[in-house]
Amino acid sequence: MSDHSNPLRIALAGLGTVGVGVIQLIEANREIITRRAGRAIEIVAVTARERSKDRGVDLTPYRWMDDMTAMAGAADVDAVVELIGGSDGPALTLARESLDSGKCFVTANKAMIAHHGMELAALAEAKGLALKYEAAVAGGIPVIKGLREGAAANRIERVYGILNGTCNYILSAMEKDGRDFADVLKDAQEKGFAEADPAFDIDGVDAAHKLAILAAISFGTQLDFDAVEIGGIRKIMAADIAQAKALGYRIRLLGLAEVDGSNGDASLFQRVHPYLVRTSHPLAHVTGPTNAVVAEGNFSGRLLFQGAGAGDKPTASSVVADLVDIARGETGPAFAMPGHMLDKLPPAKSGHRIGKTYLRMLVADKPGVLAEITAAMRDAGLSIESLIQQEASDDGSALIAMVTHAGQEKAITHTLAALSGSDSMLGEPMVMHILGE
Amino acid sequence: MSDHSNPLRIALAGLGTVGVGVIQLIEANREIITRRAGRAIEIVAVTARERSKDRGVDLTPYRWMDDMTAMAGAADVDAVVELIGGSDGPALTLARESLDSGKCFVTANKAMIAHHGMELAALAEAKGLALKYEAAVAGGIPVIKGLREGAAANRIERVYGILNGTCNYILSAMEKDGRDFADVLKDAQEKGFAEADPAFDIDGVDAAHKLAILAAISFGTQLDFDAVEIGGIRKIMAADIAQAKALGYRIRLLGLAEVDGSNGDASLFQRVHPYLVRTSHPLAHVTGPTNAVVAEGNFSGRLLFQGAGAGDKPTASSVVADLVDIARGETGPAFAMPGHMLDKLPPAKSGHRIGKTYLRMLVADKPGVLAEITAAMRDAGLSIESLIQQEASDDGSALIAMVTHAGQEKAITHTLAALSGSDSMLGEPMVMHILGE
Repeated sequence: MSDHSNPLRIALAGLGTVGVGVIQLIEANREIITRRAGRAIEIVAVTARERSKDRGVDLTPYRWMDDMTAMAGAADVDAVVELIGGSDGPALTLARESLDSGKCFVTANKAMIAHHGMELAALAEAKGLALKYEAAVAGGIPVIKGLREGAAANRIERVYGILNGTCNYILSAMEKDGRDFADVLKDAQEKGFAEADPAFDIDGVDAAHKLAILAAISFGTQLDFDAVEIGGIRKIMAADIAQAKALGYRIRLLGLAEVDGSNGDASLFQRVHPYLVRTSHPLAHVTGPTNAVVAEGNFSGRLLFQGAGAGDKPTASSVVADLVDIARGETGPAFAMPGHMLDKLPPAKSGHRIGKTYLRMLVADKPGVLAEITAAMRDAGLSIESLIQQEASDDGSALIAMVTHAGQEKAITHTLAALSGSDSMLGEPMVMHILGE
Repeated sequence: MSDHSNPLRIALAGLGTVGVGVIQLIEANREIITRRAGRAIEIVAVTARERSKDRGVDLTPYRWMDDMTAMAGAADVDAVVELIGGSDGPALTLARESLDSGKCFVTANKAMIAHHGMELAALAEAKGLALKYEAAVAGGIPVIKGLREGAAANRIERVYGILNGTCNYILSAMEKDGRDFADVLKDAQEKGFAEADPAFDIDGVDAAHKLAILAAISFGTQLDFDAVEIGGIRKIMAADIAQAKALGYRIRLLGLAEVDGSNGDASLFQRVHPYLVRTSHPLAHVTGPTNAVVAEGNFSGRLLFQGAGAGDKPTASSVVADLVDIARGETGPAFAMPGHMLDKLPPAKSGHRIGKTYLRMLVADKPGVLAEITAAMRDAGLSIESLIQQEASDDGSALIAMVTHAGQEKAITHTLAALSGSDSMLGEPMVMHILGE
């Protein structure tokens, strides 16, 4: 590390929209950043796959380096910023080599942190270097700092939130216009709110990366991405949104994590899934590509952090906030505490979890179907709080949507198992949990 | 400062509900705090006005010190926590003496920071000590950290929020039940959401303290509490809330600050006043004693921080977060940059500010009144977007509520000056600004 009266010298790898945003931010806000950081932040070197591409910014003030290994080792660089992406490959190599060479490391790469965060944190810790990733979770919202430091005095009881802007854009557009998923997705792709290949977002994987990171910081546990139970929003119908609304809920793709102590030893519950959220809850009013994270501390109560979940400028804001921290000398452990102090918790089972559930089925429009369903529920010990059956469509299918009373999740599993293979059921039922207050 | 492998030893002055909350928090969350802080936080000494009072916590583990000067100078204390309150008097003396004696200083005292923050920051800075006050603004919400560090890469363009839980409780109760101010205030006092002497809260002074602090951190400007334009909620009628609702708004007491560059040299605009907020804005959905702060950064976009604005446990959460920061060695400048770098801006004039305004008048129920009002508005260059005139009451007064088109604030002043003293006007008109998006 350079001494603190000199500029913090950074190397920037990856010049997509976020990389360009970081360059623009450092130029535009140079004066206020220098005052706040106590020293200038200066870009020394840059790299990307393609040198000649016109990115709309002048790169001539910076040294171009084709060799990322050389960048990681450059003597005039204090911190490396990685905006390449991908959980492995060049990004991971750069992270390892940068930390090995004594550089602080800043990244927006949620996949890499979710998969390799423990290894990289250990590397950073061994050398007293900062490893920072504010931009990896919820774009421009300083929620990593909010949890790691702002809520540091609390035992966090639950952390959850809207972690994927694409999904929230789609769900709130479906809500607003009554349109179906496929239709809104197409529209979102045209407007740039969804990728050409949207699977990573709409199937919940992106949110799961962020959730695993939030869980580790919130609970002082080791990252365990593989244990996240993941579901997406593909199967949500316009009718689900309408039924949820009629019952006083909105549908949001949430990542939710908590330490489950109910079965003796503590275990870590992590789930990404569409949830029904009461309209009185602040998350019900988060629309468009906005992200929002709620942390419930045993002293703080419910804290909400909300803002832009993606975009070049908000993401750059978080990347540079990390650099300001480093410039100020804040190089503490990446996951709030030294890696060896993080608890290793087994994944929680979900069958005994208690909550209300939304259940929607497409059924054959014939006598006895409701009797069959309600009998299966009765046998599983599941009772109904409210139920709506829609008039049959032209194709002879009818839609039944219901909210159960609070019960164990395994009662839902048993009910669906009992109904599985029945002639009455057309297609797979849709199960969504209801966010407990 | 003690070295970082030893506990951070603190002295606690003030054992009201927050002081007791701090003791309870440090006991309850000892293990997780130690892991996060990298060292234990230990209460060494305590003091309060009255020693014998039963506070429901065991104070015997801590040294009782009647002499606060001795506490500030105690050799075995690294940081002093002040929870006495009051802008001057013992709290200020303790702050000065603690910093003079080389102790870090943590306080929840918004009045003292708003009035003496610059002096205390200079004292702390001269000695390389931390002066921290997360709990002084918005209770349990880590918004000082969010702005000072999380949004550090941004030029903040505007900061505003719901900064007083008592007012928000009252306004949202009026909204919910259609009751009048006096009635709801009485109820709030009985439930403990309002003080026996509520003036400080309902007249906007408490929110103004917090706003002045937020402005200084957001804009890199010197604290200027005296320049805050302050208004409260006493004169808001149930009818105002109903009219606002009919027009698509909710009423919130907001503190709002921005740097105004519109008239050449930059000036600092700071106002606490009831605002009409569009129902589509997140602050419209903040109800009860909750606080919420919005910061609009030039790269981050709109950031929202929301949570409990008061209460012993949330406030203790923020106090101890500051102690964790100190335990970690984070002792940077109290207002994000050294005091001599803070700009000193003159107070902004408001006459040229452009916005929509809500205007409510009680008028005599006689012919020609509306003609008189609209003529005064025309002469001031003010045009009407929407207007509601209610049927006259039994006492012969009629209520007129309107929202103007966007115009300069001085047009409102001119309109009211022209109508002042008119027989048609019964009592003082109510003016509320409409939050610009």
